[in-house]
Amino acid sequence: MATEHTGADGAVRKWHEECGIFGIYAPGKDVARLTYYGLFALQHRGQESAGIAVADGRHIAVHKGMGLVAEVFNQENLQSLAGEVAIGHVRYSTTGASSLVNAQPLVFRYRRGMVAIAHNGNLTNATKLRHELGASGSIFQSSTDSEVIVNLIARYSQEHVEDALRRCQDKMEGAYSLVVMTEDKLLGVRDPFGVRPLCLGQMDGALILASESCALDTLGVEFIRDIEPGEIVVIDGQGVRSLQGRRAAHSAHCIFEYVYFARPDSTLDGETVNLVRRELGRNLAREHRVAADLVTPVPDSGIAAAAGYAEVAGLPFIEGLMKNRYVGRTFIQPTQEMRDLGVRLKLNPIKAILKDKRVVIIDDSIVRGTTSRRIVEMLRQAGVREVHLLVASPPVLHPCYYGIDTSARGELIAAQYNLADIRRHVGADSLHYLSHEGLFSSVARGAENFCAACFTGRYPIPIPAPEEATKYSLGGR
Amino acid sequence: MATEHTGADGAVRKWHEECGIFGIYAPGKDVARLTYYGLFALQHRGQESAGIAVADGRHIAVHKGMGLVAEVFNQENLQSLAGEVAIGHVRYSTTGASSLVNAQPLVFRYRRGMVAIAHNGNLTNATKLRHELGASGSIFQSSTDSEVIVNLIARYSQEHVEDALRRCQDKMEGAYSLVVMTEDKLLGVRDPFGVRPLCLGQMDGALILASESCALDTLGVEFIRDIEPGEIVVIDGQGVRSLQGRRAAHSAHCIFEYVYFARPDSTLDGETVNLVRRELGRNLAREHRVAADLVTPVPDSGIAAAAGYAEVAGLPFIEGLMKNRYVGRTFIQPTQEMRDLGVRLKLNPIKAILKDKRVVIIDDSIVRGTTSRRIVEMLRQAGVREVHLLVASPPVLHPCYYGIDTSARGELIAAQYNLADIRRHVGADSLHYLSHEGLFSSVARGAENFCAACFTGRYPIPIPAPEEATKYSLGGR
Amino acid sequence: MATEHTGADGAVRKWHEECGIFGIYAPGKDVARLTYYGLFALQHRGQESAGIAVADGRHIAVHKGMGLVAEVFNQENLQSLAGEVAIGHVRYSTTGASSLVNAQPLVFRYRRGMVAIAHNGNLTNATKLRHELGASGSIFQSSTDSEVIVNLIARYSQEHVEDALRRCQDKMEGAYSLVVMTEDKLLGVRDPFGVRPLCLGQMDGALILASESCALDTLGVEFIRDIEPGEIVVIDGQGVRSLQGRRAAHSAHCIFEYVYFARPDSTLDGETVNLVRRELGRNLAREHRVAADLVTPVPDSGIAAAAGYAEVAGLPFIEGLMKNRYVGRTFIQPTQEMRDLGVRLKLNPIKAILKDKRVVIIDDSIVRGTTSRRIVEMLRQAGVREVHLLVASPPVLHPCYYGIDTSARGELIAAQYNLADIRRHVGADSLHYLSHEGLFSSVARGAENFCAACFTGRYPIPIPAPEEATKYSLGGR
Amino acid sequence: MATEHTGADGAVRKWHEECGIFGIYAPGKDVARLTYYGLFALQHRGQESAGIAVADGRHIAVHKGMGLVAEVFNQENLQSLAGEVAIGHVRYSTTGASSLVNAQPLVFRYRRGMVAIAHNGNLTNATKLRHELGASGSIFQSSTDSEVIVNLIARYSQEHVEDALRRCQDKMEGAYSLVVMTEDKLLGVRDPFGVRPLCLGQMDGALILASESCALDTLGVEFIRDIEPGEIVVIDGQGVRSLQGRRAAHSAHCIFEYVYFARPDSTLDGETVNLVRRELGRNLAREHRVAADLVTPVPDSGIAAAAGYAEVAGLPFIEGLMKNRYVGRTFIQPTQEMRDLGVRLKLNPIKAILKDKRVVIIDDSIVRGTTSRRIVEMLRQAGVREVHLLVASPPVLHPCYYGIDTSARGELIAAQYNLADIRRHVGADSLHYLSHEGLFSSVARGAENFCAACFTGRYPIPIPAPEEATKYSLGGR
Repeated sequence: MATEHTGADGAVRKWHEECGIFGIYAPGKDVARLTYYGLFALQHRGQESAGIAVADGRHIAVHKGMGLVAEVFNQENLQSLAGEVAIGHVRYSTTGASSLVNAQPLVFRYRRGMVAIAHNGNLTNATKLRHELGASGSIFQSSTDSEVIVNLIARYSQEHVEDALRRCQDKMEGAYSLVVMTEDKLLGVRDPFGVRPLCLGQMDGALILASESCALDTLGVEFIRDIEPGEIVVIDGQGVRSLQGRRAAHSAHCIFEYVYFARPDSTLDGETVNLVRRELGRNLAREHRVAADLVTPVPDSGIAAAAGYAEVAGLPFIEGLMKNRYVGRTFIQPTQEMRDLGVRLKLNPIKAILKDKRVVIIDDSIVRGTTSRRIVEMLRQAGVREVHLLVASPPVLHPCYYGIDTSARGELIAAQYNLADIRRHVGADSLHYLSHEGLFSSVARGAENFCAACFTGRYPIPIPAPEEATKYSLGGR
Repeated sequence: MATEHTGADGAVRKWHEECGIFGIYAPGKDVARLTYYGLFALQHRGQESAGIAVADGRHIAVHKGMGLVAEVFNQENLQSLAGEVAIGHVRYSTTGASSLVNAQPLVFRYRRGMVAIAHNGNLTNATKLRHELGASGSIFQSSTDSEVIVNLIARYSQEHVEDALRRCQDKMEGAYSLVVMTEDKLLGVRDPFGVRPLCLGQMDGALILASESCALDTLGVEFIRDIEPGEIVVIDGQGVRSLQGRRAAHSAHCIFEYVYFARPDSTLDGETVNLVRRELGRNLAREHRVAADLVTPVPDSGIAAAAGYAEVAGLPFIEGLMKNRYVGRTFIQPTQEMRDLGVRLKLNPIKAILKDKRVVIIDDSIVRGTTSRRIVEMLRQAGVREVHLLVASPPVLHPCYYGIDTSARGELIAAQYNLADIRRHVGADSLHYLSHEGLFSSVARGAENFCAACFTGRYPIPIPAPEEATKYSLGGR
Repeated sequence: MATEHTGADGAVRKWHEECGIFGIYAPGKDVARLTYYGLFALQHRGQESAGIAVADGRHIAVHKGMGLVAEVFNQENLQSLAGEVAIGHVRYSTTGASSLVNAQPLVFRYRRGMVAIAHNGNLTNATKLRHELGASGSIFQSSTDSEVIVNLIARYSQEHVEDALRRCQDKMEGAYSLVVMTEDKLLGVRDPFGVRPLCLGQMDGALILASESCALDTLGVEFIRDIEPGEIVVIDGQGVRSLQGRRAAHSAHCIFEYVYFARPDSTLDGETVNLVRRELGRNLAREHRVAADLVTPVPDSGIAAAAGYAEVAGLPFIEGLMKNRYVGRTFIQPTQEMRDLGVRLKLNPIKAILKDKRVVIIDDSIVRGTTSRRIVEMLRQAGVREVHLLVASPPVLHPCYYGIDTSARGELIAAQYNLADIRRHVGADSLHYLSHEGLFSSVARGAENFCAACFTGRYPIPIPAPEEATKYSLGGR
Repeated sequence: MATEHTGADGAVRKWHEECGIFGIYAPGKDVARLTYYGLFALQHRGQESAGIAVADGRHIAVHKGMGLVAEVFNQENLQSLAGEVAIGHVRYSTTGASSLVNAQPLVFRYRRGMVAIAHNGNLTNATKLRHELGASGSIFQSSTDSEVIVNLIARYSQEHVEDALRRCQDKMEGAYSLVVMTEDKLLGVRDPFGVRPLCLGQMDGALILASESCALDTLGVEFIRDIEPGEIVVIDGQGVRSLQGRRAAHSAHCIFEYVYFARPDSTLDGETVNLVRRELGRNLAREHRVAADLVTPVPDSGIAAAAGYAEVAGLPFIEGLMKNRYVGRTFIQPTQEMRDLGVRLKLNPIKAILKDKRVVIIDDSIVRGTTSRRIVEMLRQAGVREVHLLVASPPVLHPCYYGIDTSARGELIAAQYNLADIRRHVGADSLHYLSHEGLFSSVARGAENFCAACFTGRYPIPIPAPEEATKYSLGGR
């Protein structure tokens, strides 16, 4: 695999992650601080910006900024956010410097009062909706889908916000998990296919919504259940009410969440990420047994699969590539002359372990292949005798339109070259991907419940025509 | 007089100042940098936030932030603002910490493309307009009138932006000077009464709009003319076109701009501020001759009037109160025990000059009286024999609704007490205000061309009913 | 184990780490930038402050600051550090806010010109030396040993710096690895016992000194050798010269470097850290076989030992505790009410893996026991059936005087309680430490070559009397 | 004159200012906060860095940083400075970015405990002293004279600090006003000629030392007296004790303090600055009467002289040049193309006042002439008929060696050209300087009590030979 992008988190990353959302209804508690900790647990889902909005029954206040949760918030601004309900958001990293305008939650005043919204996902018909709304006088400050959604809510503002949200579901196409807040109420919404995750927890009187269960664990909150595809939950003084909105015949949970995105300790829609990854490694071993001396992961996302592989293959699991935990923090890039430093700053092969060995190296996926190539090269320099690159997922052939800032199809190495060519490109002695069967047999629920379009090209939700995609965008910032 | 508020500029200030706006059309020039310098010259009109938006023919980019122009902008973010047209804004200081959302220019995408706007003034029917717009689905992120105006423009978006602005003039009540920018065009708009200033200049091919002529001088730009009340100017590749919109029978230029707000070196609607102030001082001397040894100003706004007074009265002009130029920079307030320090940090009486003297002290105006009292007290401690407080404007009796964040009527000392009581309150041996006649004879054009409502109570534009004012506000920020 | 301290790195840490040092002689190369990357690789050795000094043949310039390497340096200040020789330093984290004065390298002008120094270790007779120096007129700005050393150098300034350093070795007692720089020369010094590591590398003409070999790897530099105990190396245009200073009969390399401090991918004095740790785990399995379902590490320092344990014990290795990679970045501590959050923000047990299981949990060491207790508690809440806590090193019984900011003896849980009490305190079903034999058989060289005083109490270098230690300290900052 | 340098204060400045020092002994009071306000009043004496050191009877803590007092200190770091005695320092602005090492107060530990020092002035034999101290083992971190002084103190540390200071006076040549602090004592020292000012004040139990009396006024502190040339005052629980050290036959108070440096509201050694300046203007009028329509100052330093000139000459005083109060804050310099902007950003001539007039423009002094030239040019562009430049001091012909970072002799325009040439260079219709007699008759005490070497070349203290000056300097930072 990978390292196509290095985010602010020091992680060796592949695709831009999406977003993380969090909501809490807890009169009497310090909701801003709890949201802060919740976002902290979801930080891996986005490092570009962070924000918290708080409602106190009459007003909604918000603070947001560029950077990590711990950089955006301090004692002082957290204290200034007093209230009974809160929502929060972390957003993925982009190159644009000044996209504070896109940071969430967005807070608006409309006919019925104030509303705040935080969104994870991507509307496939956002361009069309912007166009329609603009024609009747709507204006837009950001390029976020959230602003489109709030405008839709305002259009349906004759009705209560939950009913307006149900009306919105009829207009919106694509993937969305939302937390919405009025002056005194918290709502959670999931798209008809349940592409992006959203779950519900509780803790002595408080009710919490979060992208991943790890945020509940961090707060010591009891997991109640996942929000259903198409469901709208309304949380207020009366507790939780559920409205079932549009629901598709099948779920289409994003399988890449398990392969790479989500935190290993999260359980999403019934599947624990770390266990899925270990099973991916086990299945990989069942499909591709290689004569080797040891199994080593590309850290961190390949660790569970490598341990699973080692177990089934009966080979020793050993960390032969060391990751620098501080890597994400460097903003000073090596010069051209020092370009080899790029990957060495992040990963260092341990020669004493690897020299003269036949090594199975396990990565979770390969997107563009650039990093895989550099890793193999580094292993060769460390004196590895044979490098066998095994990938714990199938080839990535198709871009994602449901909330992941993936590369264009032309950049996906597996969409351009065949297996032999890729092997030659990365320089491995052998290269093996997991099969589609191996992928789907690693999750408990049937393949029909997942969106695996990036692997299979079967898009559960219609994707926008290419010319649509740029027609109405707000531009570069 | 004064010091009711101390802004970030170290100035001893009275009322919150309003805003300053700037626009430039200059293909081939560094419009962002020129706007930066222009705002720099208008910094006295607002120290809370600053912003610059730039259009390059296809897109509008914006950078804004809290603080002074020199704090918000640096080499890097200025360079990122490339284009052919630019508008800029400085905003007055408030206590609210996080009102970045209110910083201008505002940039929006609407049906016909992108539009940016910067506003100086106050709409008196903004609440009503927000209500109407909200009822048909508009949403608001800020509490600025600018957002109301952009929503109006979007409603009239079947037409060109200049026509939409003319339609807007029919809906908007109150005081407004606007600079508006599309992807390739600059527009300037002034309300039917011309309450807030706006002028036009040119420099080898470039056309510039600015709140005050001092911004033109700073850039070495030739002053062309003031924008007329009700006029809309459109500036693009064809040069300047003028549309005459709604115009009132009489102008109502804010007279307080001359008394206190504007920079002394500006000429607004034909009157040079410094000369008006000197004349105010001269007229004050004609009305109130006092037996004294010297004349000293409350710096800086009282200097010109004091010099004029000294000249007519035949008394020596001498700076007996020294202002600390760094005062605005201190954010650490003296504790209660040290409360006397408050005014001493800003002003220091020079005992060697003042001791045993009969002193005429000239202030430009008195709003709440608190600072006047402290100054008189300080002068007494310095051994002054007699303190004669002379004010180069009439008593401030009425709040402003046209763009100045004035105190409520209850805080205006002259609205509560008679002359004798005020004199006793501030502790002066004598207290004299300039008469209305003295005020109006200090300007060249007739009294009927000015708004002097804060002195006279004659509001040229209907003011909102009290209950209106809070009904639809965005709340605490 | 652990988490007695949480540093800025997000690591679950135990003892304050010491310091990392780096030096490079490379005319014609960007020595500041190479030092930056070298420090980056040594960041785990200190997160409080960072600094780089550069010599250009005539002058030494320095930049240092509080925080991580990537926070202290930017493109601009790195570029201002031009030269041919450079040294750098990272310092451990303390609670004191403003200890910039203690940041290194220290740069001084003395009789023979300029000298810069960076130090890892601790002089046991620093108090006595300060006293002697002070009596003859020396003054001190910092509380660092480095300033003592530079004063000693200045006292011997009749001689060349390398000879002065040899003279210094006769005065200095304790542990020290030093990089020293004059205007045109780089020197490396190691104490007679070689307590703290220091190695030498080269890369087309450049010569490099670093605390750990991982810094050489990161730069793609070839490892040459470790500096010998007592050795002084002089690096200049003539290459490397070696002077053998005082050398002890036996080496006393710090064994805790292998157990916990050093980066797993480093090889120090012939031993590869990761392999030592794996062997510690293997030996632990040979000594303490436990009936269990799986082995899970306390991340990150327990991973290698856990994998080694799992291999020998024939149990599955699985990561059941998930670490939040962003944890070090939070500066906002949970309130008392939320105190349970403390450890949950850092570590989250994966219930789906652990529930109803008999778990062997491997930690590298236990210092105070507080964190171990919280981890066991967390595992219980996750439904673990049996918790067996196995520690891959012997009980820590004695404080370190050689450069590690360890707890006082009274805080070391193993120095206060017996095994049964500790087990009860942490709440485990069983608790096992590695034996001294198991420890020493994990390293290739004999026990007599290591300092293991924290485990054995056998201090190879005399330690200061208690009253000495505070008599002459510079105080709290 | 003017604007050779623009500092962080927005002032149009000439020579780098020197430094300001402050000390307070006030058990039971918030000495750090009082020092903060004191430094605030002395900010005009230095804008590069600021620092405060506080002693609590046992320890000395310090905080300092680059920038203005209000930038360096905040509520938090002020609160952390608790104690009974404090000293503070503001330092002039230089171009070097990272000279934090030179920021004062300096704090050292020496044989007798801790000592802090803040210095205003310049030792003329610092190089020689550094050399002597270095030969016997002293090391230096900064290039400040203060570090030399502390090293001297340490050498005399057999004696009490006041006696050591008396011994120091025998070694030190040049200009120095010092505040020195031990753990529980405050000392003030002035050089034998009293070149730099220092005064003493008191306020219910507190005793204060300050560079200028304006700092006492700001705190509401009663002025007691100036410290005598050569005097050492010791302030502790016993009150004030005075030791008379070396004293010269005549004082040599810096006359440029009155001409330009000091705050107008200060009284130094019996002379009130503002009155001296007014008298300079009056004398200028007596010497050079010009047929003109009005008198206008170069703000701010020319105001008092211009008012004095106007009074004697019987001409109207009017501010025809407007200064932008925010100018010092701009860090973005105009590009070459915009270079005319340089002076316009700071000063704007008011055309309505100046057009077709014969103008007397008063500046306090001319150093390099560059700014004078630009101002005259600007006045011409504003349509002034005749420009008569009158300077309220004699030609500056000689550099200062006593604490002012003046230009080299080659840059002093009056040292290179005759009057006619200078007039032509600046472009004025006439140019007149004040005579030496006019200068000295503006102060009350006789000429023999002042150092006016920059005008007369008569240096009261031997100046260093040119080769000396660079031999032992610490270099560029």
